[in-house]
Amino acid sequence: MHAILTSTEFQMSLLMFVALAGYLIAYRINQSAVVGIILAGIVVGPSVLRLVTYTGFVQTLAQMGAVVLLFTIGLEFSFNDILKPRYFVIALIGIIIPALGGYLLAKVFGYDFKASIFIGTALTATSIAITANVLKEMGKLQTNVAKAIIGAAVIDDVLALLALSISEGIVSGDISAGPILLTILKAVGFVVLGIVIGKLLLQKLLLWMDKTKIVAKYPESLFIFAIMIAFFYAMVADYAGLSAIVGGFLAGMAFDGVKLSRGNVFKEGAEHLQIIFAAVFFVSLGVIMDLHTITLNVIWFVLALSAVAMLTKIIGCGIPARFQHMSMKDSFTVGLGMVPRGEVAMIIALIGLNQGIINQATYAAIILMSLLTTIIPPLVLRNWVFKKT
Amino acid sequence: MHAILTSTEFQMSLLMFVALAGYLIAYRINQSAVVGIILAGIVVGPSVLRLVTYTGFVQTLAQMGAVVLLFTIGLEFSFNDILKPRYFVIALIGIIIPALGGYLLAKVFGYDFKASIFIGTALTATSIAITANVLKEMGKLQTNVAKAIIGAAVIDDVLALLALSISEGIVSGDISAGPILLTILKAVGFVVLGIVIGKLLLQKLLLWMDKTKIVAKYPESLFIFAIMIAFFYAMVADYAGLSAIVGGFLAGMAFDGVKLSRGNVFKEGAEHLQIIFAAVFFVSLGVIMDLHTITLNVIWFVLALSAVAMLTKIIGCGIPARFQHMSMKDSFTVGLGMVPRGEVAMIIALIGLNQGIINQATYAAIILMSLLTTIIPPLVLRNWVFKKT
Repeated sequence: MHAILTSTEFQMSLLMFVALAGYLIAYRINQSAVVGIILAGIVVGPSVLRLVTYTGFVQTLAQMGAVVLLFTIGLEFSFNDILKPRYFVIALIGIIIPALGGYLLAKVFGYDFKASIFIGTALTATSIAITANVLKEMGKLQTNVAKAIIGAAVIDDVLALLALSISEGIVSGDISAGPILLTILKAVGFVVLGIVIGKLLLQKLLLWMDKTKIVAKYPESLFIFAIMIAFFYAMVADYAGLSAIVGGFLAGMAFDGVKLSRGNVFKEGAEHLQIIFAAVFFVSLGVIMDLHTITLNVIWFVLALSAVAMLTKIIGCGIPARFQHMSMKDSFTVGLGMVPRGEVAMIIALIGLNQGIINQATYAAIILMSLLTTIIPPLVLRNWVFKKT
Repeated sequence: MHAILTSTEFQMSLLMFVALAGYLIAYRINQSAVVGIILAGIVVGPSVLRLVTYTGFVQTLAQMGAVVLLFTIGLEFSFNDILKPRYFVIALIGIIIPALGGYLLAKVFGYDFKASIFIGTALTATSIAITANVLKEMGKLQTNVAKAIIGAAVIDDVLALLALSISEGIVSGDISAGPILLTILKAVGFVVLGIVIGKLLLQKLLLWMDKTKIVAKYPESLFIFAIMIAFFYAMVADYAGLSAIVGGFLAGMAFDGVKLSRGNVFKEGAEHLQIIFAAVFFVSLGVIMDLHTITLNVIWFVLALSAVAMLTKIIGCGIPARFQHMSMKDSFTVGLGMVPRGEVAMIIALIGLNQGIINQATYAAIILMSLLTTIIPPLVLRNWVFKKT
């Protein structure tokens, strides 16, 4: 019986069952599916039922899921979406202020230097997936506010992962300018090269492939090609010191807007792949957390961290938006829209946990902060900002 | 650098690259993609370049790929396709004669009892995927001959996997009637229960889910449900002593013909999932084979085995077809259409190899037989049977 319970088939079936339960929870509490699936993961994980553990199988699929998820999101954006200076300013200030706020709060709560740096870093990244999804659910994707949120969130993601690289450099003791500069050069170099190769080579390659007789005979080969590039970019991003998911995201953007004769066969494909894999990824985020590690002191820290996470994004993104002649309400909405930390903060926390920089309790605190910042803005947006009068 | 080369991202990217190379090979030699991808797997595997090894990662994804592949194929068939007595007779005799032929040939070549049983078993199963694909490529799917081939191939698959269960029983030393009867009961019990539950419960559950507000809000949950069922069936099939893929196939058939309000969202999804995973599966079939283990004696055995594999299917399926009042040419076509062994023989060979019943050389011989029987019939069908006069 033990062989059955550890079999690939059983684990896969169970993960899908948990994901389904997550959809049910999400529906009941009227939240995005991401939140429900993570909650379901918490319930079946070591925190409550102890049914699912973070095995190598779960880890591998989750890792693939994160890459495919960011690839799929990347497909929604062009490089031009990222390269707007206005959004860059919103994203940049919206990263610096939360990073400082998180660092200072951690110091106040008595965390050491390395952990404080990581907690600050975990506050930097907005989740594109969650923000975009909330706006989409509300039918507000084509408003100027939404474009500012998504544009800034995209840049925010790259900046936050650069911030992560720098934090990792600082934490690993290479605080001298040389190694950090190298880290930045490698990361920026990868991003620039990735964009240039994507724009000049990959899109043309795809268009050329699309006209070949091979693709006419086997249209699915374009999809396989896209997934190959997604994981290749992820691998190189990893090598360049960035998170692998940035690679997946850049690969997705490289393929944005390509007009193929048979429609974007790989876009639909990637979305279907993402449904299954991202579900495993979100379940894994819940499973890897052990709520038993949370003590009373951490609960106060979670609440304080979540408050700082929300206020610093609202201020850090809202003020530059206001300076760009947006109305008070729109500026607040941009800030609020940037609040959800979602899976990106969780990935950063996971890296910190795996490297031993933060402990289980701090990891759980960041995940809870991520959950709270993900749950609260949609409530405010739904009941106040976009409320029909 | 070593960490990069063993990373999930690198392995996944490489596997997709090999699959793409496989499509190129398939196109150049004018064969089905399956053949090309396996050949590409042989080239990058230990036989030639030694670039890809059969790691746990490859094995896990390949295993999932086989389940998803058979689930997708199952979606094309209803239980009624299987339950035609005429096709049952073609399938049954088309299994007994190749099994006997393979067993006797192996004995002649000096193989021991267990290996001979397994070699006979490996000759039993027709690949639905390859047969159906060849007929589809030729636009002949809606002919009576094609329906007989596919119907019989479906039953053949289940019978061959029952034969595998029995062979495994015999080989493991349980030659007494009791355990074999239990094996048969468990296998048939699973198939019958799987069909009954599929027909009475799953289809209704799916139709009910389709009308819920949860699915209206999250249509992707139906796809997750389908994949959950596919792997659950695969797990139970495994537990019942059958191959996991039979479970995937039955699960697919359970969902056949369900009319959902949003179209068969899970069908497209499963096909996309199958493109990536089945590619890994086919690559793995090439990678696990080491052609260095083939000696001169085995080459003769491969040729003899392939000849027996082809003749016994043509005779074993062609004669019952002729008795069912098909013309000589149609009967021959039915027999020829049942010749491709494809992935099913490879899975049986893999089980034999993993259990130590057959050695690397015999494994490679069965894979080569499978390749030859897969490559030759399409050539004959294309240049002779369906040739325009």
